Amino acid sequence: MSFTEYPSKLLENAVNEFASLPGIGRKTAFRLVMSLLKRDPAEVEKFGESIIKLHREIRYCRICHNLSDGEVCSICSDEKRDKSLICIVESIQDVMAIENTRQYRGVYHVLGGVISPVDGVGPADLKIDSLEEKVRQGGVSEIIFALSTTMEGDTTNFYLYKRLNKYDVSISTLARGVAIGDELEYTDEITLGRAISNRNPYHQ
Amino acid sequence: MSFTEYPSKLLENAVNEFASLPGIGRKTAFRLVMSLLKRDPAEVEKFGESIIKLHREIRYCRICHNLSDGEVCSICSDEKRDKSLICIVESIQDVMAIENTRQYRGVYHVLGGVISPVDGVGPADLKIDSLEEKVRQGGVSEIIFALSTTMEGDTTNFYLYKRLNKYDVSISTLARGVAIGDELEYTDEITLGRAISNRNPYHQ
Repeated sequence: MSFTEYPSKLLENAVNEFASLPGIGRKTAFRLVMSLLKRDPAEVEKFGESIIKLHREIRYCRICHNLSDGEVCSICSDEKRDKSLICIVESIQDVMAIENTRQYRGVYHVLGGVISPVDGVGPADLKIDSLEEKVRQGGVSEIIFALSTTMEGDTTNFYLYKRLNKYDVSISTLARGVAIGDELEYTDEITLGRAISNRNPYHQ
Repeated sequence: MSFTEYPSKLLENAVNEFASLPGIGRKTAFRLVMSLLKRDPAEVEKFGESIIKLHREIRYCRICHNLSDGEVCSICSDEKRDKSLICIVESIQDVMAIENTRQYRGVYHVLGGVISPVDGVGPADLKIDSLEEKVRQGGVSEIIFALSTTMEGDTTNFYLYKRLNKYDVSISTLARGVAIGDELEYTDEITLGRAISNRNPYHQ
Protein backbone atom coordinates (compact mmCIF):
# COMPACT_ATOMS: atom_id res chain seq x y z
CA MET A 1 0.00 0.00 0.00
CA SER A 2 1.30 3.43 -0.80
CA PHE A 3 1.68 6.41 1.47
CA THR A 4 -1.51 8.30 0.67
CA GLU A 5 -3.89 5.47 1.41
CA TYR A 6 -3.71 5.79 5.20
CA PRO A 7 -6.11 8.37 6.59
CA SER A 8 -3.63 9.36 9.28
CA LYS A 9 0.14 9.72 9.56
CA LEU A 10 0.04 8.44 13.15
CA LEU A 11 -1.76 5.32 12.00
CA GLU A 12 0.71 4.87 9.18
CA ASN A 13 3.69 5.18 11.54
CA ALA A 14 2.28 2.58 13.88
CA VAL A 15 1.49 0.21 11.00
CA ASN A 16 5.01 0.65 9.62
CA GLU A 17 6.51 -0.20 13.01
CA PHE A 18 4.48 -3.38 13.37
CA ALA A 19 5.15 -4.36 9.75
CA SER A 20 8.90 -4.13 10.46
CA LEU A 21 8.63 -7.12 12.82
CA PRO A 22 9.58 -10.54 11.44
CA GLY A 23 6.64 -12.45 9.96
CA ILE A 24 4.23 -9.51 10.23
CA GLY A 25 2.95 -8.23 6.89
CA ARG A 26 1.25 -4.87 6.28
CA LYS A 27 -2.26 -6.34 6.47
CA THR A 28 -1.58 -8.02 9.81
CA ALA A 29 0.17 -4.89 11.09
CA PHE A 30 -2.89 -2.81 10.21
CA ARG A 31 -5.18 -5.29 11.93
CA LEU A 32 -3.03 -5.19 15.08
CA VAL A 33 -2.99 -1.38 15.13
CA MET A 34 -6.76 -1.22 14.66
CA SER A 35 -7.18 -3.59 17.60
CA LEU A 36 -5.01 -1.28 19.71
CA LEU A 37 -7.13 1.70 18.68
CA LYS A 38 -10.22 0.00 20.01
CA ARG A 39 -8.64 -0.49 23.43
CA ASP A 40 -8.56 1.64 26.49
CA PRO A 41 -5.95 4.45 26.12
CA ALA A 42 -4.29 3.49 29.42
CA GLU A 43 -3.81 -0.07 28.21
CA VAL A 44 -2.23 1.11 24.98
CA GLU A 45 0.18 3.37 26.87
CA LYS A 46 1.18 0.39 28.99
CA PHE A 47 1.87 -1.55 25.81
CA GLY A 48 4.08 1.18 24.40
CA GLU A 49 5.89 1.67 27.69
CA SER A 50 6.61 -2.05 28.09
CA ILE A 51 8.47 -1.90 24.77
CA ILE A 52 10.41 1.25 25.64
CA LYS A 53 11.34 -0.09 29.08
CA LEU A 54 12.40 -3.42 27.63
CA HIS A 55 15.41 -2.00 25.87
CA ARG A 56 16.13 0.76 28.35
CA GLU A 57 16.15 -1.30 31.52
CA ILE A 58 16.93 -4.87 30.60
CA ARG A 59 20.32 -6.24 31.65
CA TYR A 60 22.38 -9.26 30.72
CA CYS A 61 23.62 -11.44 33.57
CA ARG A 62 27.31 -10.70 34.13
CA ILE A 63 27.97 -14.38 34.87
CA CYS A 64 26.04 -16.32 32.20
CA HIS A 65 24.93 -13.57 29.75
CA ASN A 66 21.30 -14.59 30.06
CA LEU A 67 18.66 -11.84 30.10
CA SER A 68 18.19 -10.47 33.57
CA ASP A 69 16.46 -7.68 35.48
CA GLY A 70 19.55 -7.15 37.61
CA GLU A 71 23.29 -7.63 37.41
CA VAL A 72 23.03 -11.38 38.06
CA CYS A 73 20.14 -13.44 36.65
CA SER A 74 17.67 -15.43 38.73
CA ILE A 75 19.34 -18.74 37.78
CA CYS A 76 22.91 -17.69 38.69
CA SER A 77 21.71 -16.15 41.95
CA ASP A 78 19.68 -19.24 42.90
CA GLU A 79 21.38 -20.95 45.87
CA LYS A 80 19.92 -24.32 44.90
CA ARG A 81 21.50 -24.47 41.44
CA ASP A 82 24.70 -26.45 41.01
CA LYS A 83 27.31 -23.88 39.94
CA SER A 84 29.87 -26.60 39.08
CA LEU A 85 27.72 -27.80 36.15
CA ILE A 86 27.57 -25.40 33.18
CA CYS A 87 25.38 -25.94 30.13
CA ILE A 88 26.61 -24.08 27.03
CA VAL A 89 23.81 -22.76 24.83
CA GLU A 90 23.56 -20.44 21.84
CA SER A 91 20.74 -18.21 22.95
CA ILE A 92 18.35 -17.10 25.68
CA GLN A 93 15.62 -19.10 23.92
CA ASP A 94 17.67 -22.27 24.49
CA VAL A 95 17.95 -21.48 28.21
CA MET A 96 14.17 -21.20 28.33
CA ALA A 97 13.70 -24.45 26.39
CA ILE A 98 15.91 -26.36 28.84
CA GLU A 99 14.33 -24.65 31.87
CA ASN A 100 10.95 -25.81 30.57
CA THR A 101 12.05 -29.44 30.95
CA ARG A 102 12.49 -28.83 34.73
CA GLN A 103 15.18 -31.52 34.63
CA TYR A 104 18.32 -29.40 34.80
CA ARG A 105 19.70 -28.10 38.10
CA GLY A 106 23.02 -26.63 36.91
CA VAL A 107 23.67 -23.18 35.47
CA TYR A 108 24.11 -21.88 31.91
CA HIS A 109 26.51 -19.97 29.74
CA VAL A 110 24.93 -18.15 26.77
CA LEU A 111 27.42 -17.90 23.89
CA GLY A 112 25.29 -15.51 21.84
CA GLY A 113 25.55 -17.63 18.69
CA VAL A 114 27.79 -20.20 17.02
CA ILE A 115 30.96 -19.89 14.93
CA SER A 116 29.85 -19.32 11.35
CA PRO A 117 32.42 -18.03 8.85
CA VAL A 118 29.66 -17.62 6.24
CA ASP A 119 27.83 -15.14 8.48
CA GLY A 120 31.10 -13.53 9.59
CA VAL A 121 30.81 -14.84 13.16
CA GLY A 122 34.19 -15.80 14.64
CA PRO A 123 35.15 -16.99 18.15
CA ALA A 124 35.84 -13.37 19.19
CA ASP A 125 32.17 -12.47 18.56
CA LEU A 126 30.99 -15.03 21.10
CA LYS A 127 31.23 -15.09 24.90
CA ILE A 128 34.05 -17.65 24.90
CA ASP A 129 36.74 -15.74 26.81
CA SER A 130 34.48 -15.31 29.82
CA LEU A 131 33.64 -19.04 29.69
CA GLU A 132 37.31 -20.03 29.64
CA GLU A 133 38.01 -17.61 32.50
CA LYS A 134 35.21 -19.20 34.54
CA VAL A 135 36.68 -22.67 33.96
CA ARG A 136 40.26 -21.47 34.61
CA GLN A 137 39.25 -20.07 38.01
CA GLY A 138 38.15 -23.57 39.01
CA GLY A 139 35.03 -24.88 40.73
CA VAL A 140 33.57 -26.17 37.45
CA SER A 141 33.35 -29.95 37.25
CA GLU A 142 31.36 -30.47 34.06
CA ILE A 143 30.55 -28.60 30.87
CA ILE A 144 27.57 -29.75 28.76
CA PHE A 145 27.53 -28.71 25.10
CA ALA A 146 23.91 -28.02 24.08
CA LEU A 147 24.42 -26.32 20.72
CA SER A 148 22.52 -26.97 17.48
CA THR A 149 23.33 -30.16 15.59
CA THR A 150 24.42 -28.17 12.56
CA MET A 151 27.83 -27.84 10.98
CA GLU A 152 28.25 -24.49 12.79
CA GLY A 153 27.24 -26.05 16.09
CA ASP A 154 29.69 -28.91 15.60
CA THR A 155 32.47 -26.49 14.65
CA THR A 156 31.79 -24.46 17.79
CA ASN A 157 31.76 -27.62 19.94
CA PHE A 158 35.14 -28.61 18.48
CA TYR A 159 36.61 -25.14 19.04
CA LEU A 160 35.34 -25.00 22.63
CA TYR A 161 36.67 -28.51 23.29
CA LYS A 162 40.13 -27.44 22.09
CA ARG A 163 40.09 -24.45 24.42
CA LEU A 164 38.65 -26.16 27.47
CA ASN A 165 40.14 -29.67 27.49
CA LYS A 166 43.41 -28.43 29.02
CA TYR A 167 41.53 -27.73 32.24
CA ASP A 168 40.41 -30.33 34.76
CA VAL A 169 36.78 -30.45 33.64
CA SER A 170 34.69 -33.18 32.04
CA ILE A 171 32.98 -32.23 28.80
CA SER A 172 29.75 -33.86 27.64
CA THR A 173 27.16 -33.25 24.98
CA LEU A 174 23.39 -33.77 24.77
CA ALA A 175 22.30 -37.28 23.84
CA ARG A 176 21.30 -37.57 20.19
CA GLY A 177 18.78 -40.15 19.09
CA VAL A 178 15.25 -40.86 17.98
CA ALA A 179 12.91 -38.27 19.49
CA ILE A 180 10.31 -39.62 21.91
CA GLY A 181 7.06 -40.18 20.05
CA ASP A 182 8.79 -40.29 16.65
CA GLU A 183 8.28 -43.22 14.31
CA LEU A 184 11.40 -44.93 12.97
CA GLU A 185 10.05 -44.81 9.44
CA TYR A 186 10.13 -41.00 9.48
CA THR A 187 13.40 -40.50 11.37
CA ASP A 188 16.20 -39.15 9.16
CA GLU A 189 19.06 -41.55 8.44
CA ILE A 190 21.77 -39.54 10.24
CA THR A 191 19.79 -39.44 13.49
CA LEU A 192 18.88 -43.10 13.14
CA GLY A 193 22.51 -44.03 12.42
CA ARG A 194 23.68 -42.17 15.53
CA ALA A 195 20.91 -43.73 17.59
CA ILE A 196 22.15 -47.20 16.59
CA SER A 197 25.83 -46.54 17.29
CA ASN A 198 25.02 -44.83 20.62
CA ARG A 199 22.59 -47.57 21.69
CA ASN A 200 22.01 -48.08 25.42
CA PRO A 201 21.58 -51.27 27.47
CA TYR A 202 17.92 -52.22 27.69
CA HIS A 203 16.32 -51.82 31.12
CA GLN A 204 13.19 -53.76 31.89
CA MET B 1 4.18 -20.99 29.87
CA SER B 2 4.14 -20.12 33.50
CA PHE B 3 5.47 -17.08 35.27
CA THR B 4 8.84 -18.35 36.43
CA GLU B 5 10.10 -19.48 33.08
CA TYR B 6 11.01 -16.00 31.81
CA PRO B 7 14.47 -14.86 32.87
CA SER B 8 13.25 -11.28 33.19
CA LYS B 9 10.09 -9.52 34.32
CA LEU B 10 10.56 -6.82 31.67
CA LEU B 11 10.75 -9.47 29.00
CA GLU B 12 7.69 -11.18 30.39
CA ASN B 13 5.72 -7.92 30.41
CA ALA B 14 6.58 -7.21 26.79
CA VAL B 15 5.69 -10.78 25.76
CA ASN B 16 2.37 -10.53 27.59
CA GLU B 17 1.54 -7.30 25.79
CA PHE B 18 2.27 -8.73 22.36
CA ALA B 19 0.42 -11.95 23.19
CA SER B 20 -2.68 -9.86 24.00
CA LEU B 21 -2.95 -8.84 20.34
CA PRO B 22 -5.41 -10.78 18.16
CA GLY B 23 -3.87 -13.76 16.39
CA ILE B 24 -0.54 -13.49 18.25
CA GLY B 25 0.25 -16.48 20.47
CA ARG B 26 2.87 -16.60 23.22
CA LYS B 27 5.52 -18.19 21.00
CA THR B 28 5.12 -15.55 18.30
CA ALA B 29 5.02 -12.80 20.93
CA PHE B 30 8.30 -14.05 22.36
CA ARG B 31 9.88 -14.17 18.90
CA LEU B 32 8.76 -10.58 18.21
CA VAL B 33 10.13 -9.33 21.53
CA MET B 34 13.46 -11.08 20.93
CA SER B 35 13.68 -9.42 17.52
CA LEU B 36 13.10 -6.04 19.19
CA LEU B 37 15.84 -6.78 21.72
CA LYS B 38 18.32 -7.31 18.89
CA ARG B 39 17.57 -3.89 17.42
CA ASP B 40 19.04 -0.50 18.03
CA PRO B 41 17.64 1.02 21.28
CA ALA B 42 16.62 4.22 19.45
CA GLU B 43 14.57 2.22 16.97
CA VAL B 44 12.80 0.35 19.74
CA GLU B 45 11.95 3.60 21.54
CA LYS B 46 10.48 4.90 18.28
CA PHE B 47 8.36 1.73 18.09
CA GLY B 48 7.04 2.20 21.60
CA GLU B 49 6.40 5.90 21.10
CA SER B 50 4.49 5.34 17.86
CA ILE B 51 2.05 3.17 19.82
CA ILE B 52 1.68 5.64 22.69
CA LYS B 53 1.22 8.57 20.31
CA LEU B 54 -1.32 6.66 18.26
CA HIS B 55 -3.93 6.69 20.97
CA ARG B 56 -2.94 9.99 22.53
CA GLU B 57 -2.95 12.13 19.41
CA ILE B 58 -5.20 10.48 16.86
CA ARG B 59 -8.46 12.25 16.02
CA TYR B 60 -11.65 11.25 14.28
CA CYS B 61 -12.86 13.51 11.46
CA ARG B 62 -15.74 15.61 12.76
CA ILE B 63 -17.51 15.35 9.38
CA CYS B 64 -17.17 11.68 8.34
CA HIS B 65 -15.79 9.99 11.53
CA ASN B 66 -12.83 8.56 9.61
CA LEU B 67 -9.45 8.49 11.39
CA SER B 68 -7.64 11.78 11.01
CA ASP B 69 -4.58 13.68 12.21
CA GLY B 70 -6.63 16.86 12.52
CA GLU B 71 -10.22 17.93 13.09
CA VAL B 72 -11.18 17.21 9.46
CA CYS B 73 -9.71 14.25 7.56
CA SER B 74 -7.72 14.50 4.35
CA ILE B 75 -10.65 13.23 2.26
CA CYS B 76 -13.24 15.68 3.63
CA SER B 77 -10.78 18.57 3.30
CA ASP B 78 -9.86 17.67 -0.28
CA GLU B 79 -11.27 20.34 -2.63
CA LYS B 80 -11.43 17.89 -5.52
CA ARG B 81 -13.76 15.40 -3.80
CA ASP B 82 -17.46 15.58 -4.58
CA LYS B 83 -19.14 16.47 -1.27
CA SER B 84 -22.63 15.80 -2.67
CA LEU B 85 -21.89 12.08 -2.98
CA ILE B 86 -21.61 10.19 0.35
CA CYS B 87 -20.63 6.54 0.65
CA ILE B 88 -21.83 4.91 3.89
CA VAL B 89 -19.39 2.36 5.30
CA GLU B 90 -19.06 0.41 8.53
CA SER B 91 -15.42 1.03 9.33
CA ILE B 92 -12.19 2.84 8.57
CA GLN B 93 -10.92 -0.35 6.93
CA ASP B 94 -13.78 -0.09 4.41
CA VAL B 95 -12.81 3.51 3.58
CA MET B 96 -9.29 2.28 2.86
CA ALA B 97 -10.55 -0.61 0.73
CA ILE B 98 -12.63 1.74 -1.44
CA GLU B 99 -9.82 4.32 -1.61
CA ASN B 100 -7.54 1.55 -2.90
CA THR B 101 -9.77 1.13 -5.96
CA ARG B 102 -8.99 4.77 -6.91
CA GLN B 103 -12.41 4.85 -8.58
CA TYR B 104 -14.41 6.85 -6.06
CA ARG B 105 -14.31 10.66 -5.97
CA GLY B 106 -17.04 11.33 -3.41
CA VAL B 107 -16.75 11.43 0.38
CA TYR B 108 -17.55 8.91 3.13
CA HIS B 109 -19.54 8.52 6.29
CA VAL B 110 -18.20 5.94 8.77
CA LEU B 111 -21.06 4.45 10.82
CA GLY B 112 -18.80 2.64 13.24
CA GLY B 113 -20.60 -0.69 12.81
CA VAL B 114 -23.96 -2.11 11.81
CA ILE B 115 -27.19 -2.62 13.70
CA SER B 116 -26.91 -5.99 15.46
CA PRO B 117 -29.36 -6.79 18.25
CA VAL B 118 -27.39 -9.98 19.07
CA ASP B 119 -24.27 -7.91 19.86
CA GLY B 120 -26.33 -5.20 21.56
CA VAL B 121 -25.67 -2.61 18.83
CA GLY B 122 -28.67 -0.39 18.18
CA PRO B 123 -29.09 2.64 15.90
CA ALA B 124 -28.12 4.98 18.77
CA ASP B 125 -24.67 3.35 18.95
CA LEU B 126 -23.92 4.29 15.34
CA LYS B 127 -23.21 7.65 13.75
CA ILE B 128 -26.66 7.89 12.19
CA ASP B 129 -27.88 11.18 13.68
CA SER B 130 -24.95 13.10 12.23
CA LEU B 131 -25.61 11.48 8.84
CA GLU B 132 -29.25 12.49 8.87
CA GLU B 133 -28.27 16.00 9.94
CA LYS B 134 -25.84 16.22 7.00
CA VAL B 135 -28.59 15.16 4.57
CA ARG B 136 -31.16 17.46 6.21
CA GLN B 137 -28.90 20.47 5.74
CA GLY B 138 -28.94 19.81 1.97
CA GLY B 139 -26.20 19.73 -0.63
CA VAL B 140 -26.19 15.90 -0.70
CA SER B 141 -27.45 14.46 -3.99
CA GLU B 142 -26.65 10.77 -3.57
CA ILE B 143 -26.03 8.28 -0.76
CA ILE B 144 -24.33 4.95 -1.58
CA PHE B 145 -24.82 2.10 0.90
CA ALA B 146 -21.60 0.06 1.06
CA LEU B 147 -22.27 -2.14 4.09
CA SER B 148 -21.62 -5.87 4.45
CA THR B 149 -24.01 -8.22 2.67
CA THR B 150 -25.02 -9.82 5.93
CA MET B 151 -28.34 -9.79 7.71
CA GLU B 152 -27.01 -7.00 9.97
CA GLY B 153 -25.84 -5.00 6.95
CA ASP B 154 -29.21 -5.41 5.25
CA THR B 155 -31.07 -4.42 8.42
CA THR B 156 -28.93 -1.29 8.70
CA ASN B 157 -29.52 -0.45 5.03
CA PHE B 158 -33.26 -0.75 5.59
CA TYR B 159 -33.16 1.38 8.74
CA LEU B 160 -31.07 4.08 7.03
CA TYR B 161 -33.38 4.02 4.00
CA LYS B 162 -36.39 4.62 6.28
CA ARG B 163 -34.68 7.59 7.90
CA LEU B 164 -33.26 9.16 4.76
CA ASN B 165 -35.86 8.62 2.04
CA LYS B 166 -37.97 11.55 3.24
CA TYR B 167 -35.19 13.88 2.04
CA ASP B 168 -34.51 14.82 -1.57
CA VAL B 169 -31.58 12.44 -2.05
CA SER B 170 -31.12 9.40 -4.27
CA ILE B 171 -30.05 6.22 -2.48
CA SER B 172 -28.06 3.49 -4.18
CA THR B 173 -26.19 0.38 -3.11
CA LEU B 174 -23.06 -1.38 -4.35
CA ALA B 175 -23.59 -3.75 -7.31
CA ARG B 176 -23.67 -7.40 -6.22
CA GLY B 177 -22.64 -10.13 -8.62
CA VAL B 178 -20.03 -12.65 -9.59
CA ALA B 179 -16.59 -11.35 -8.56
CA ILE B 180 -14.15 -10.66 -11.38
CA GLY B 181 -11.86 -13.67 -11.83
CA ASP B 182 -14.29 -16.02 -10.05
CA GLU B 183 -15.51 -19.21 -11.69
CA LEU B 184 -19.27 -19.75 -11.83
CA GLU B 185 -18.86 -23.27 -10.52
CA TYR B 186 -17.54 -21.97 -7.21
CA THR B 187 -19.82 -18.97 -6.82
CA ASP B 188 -22.38 -19.39 -4.05
CA GLU B 189 -26.00 -19.74 -5.14
CA ILE B 190 -27.25 -16.52 -3.53
CA THR B 191 -24.66 -14.39 -5.32
CA LEU B 192 -25.27 -16.23 -8.56
CA GLY B 193 -29.05 -15.83 -8.22
CA ARG B 194 -28.66 -12.10 -7.64
CA ALA B 195 -26.25 -11.83 -10.56
CA ILE B 196 -28.86 -13.39 -12.85
CA SER B 197 -31.74 -11.23 -11.69
CA ASN B 198 -29.57 -8.06 -11.86
CA ARG B 199 -28.13 -8.93 -15.29
CA ASN B 200 -26.88 -6.05 -17.45
CA PRO B 201 -27.15 -5.49 -21.22
CA TYR B 202 -24.15 -6.97 -23.01
CA HIS B 203 -21.70 -4.45 -24.48
CA GLN B 204 -19.42 -5.55 -27.24
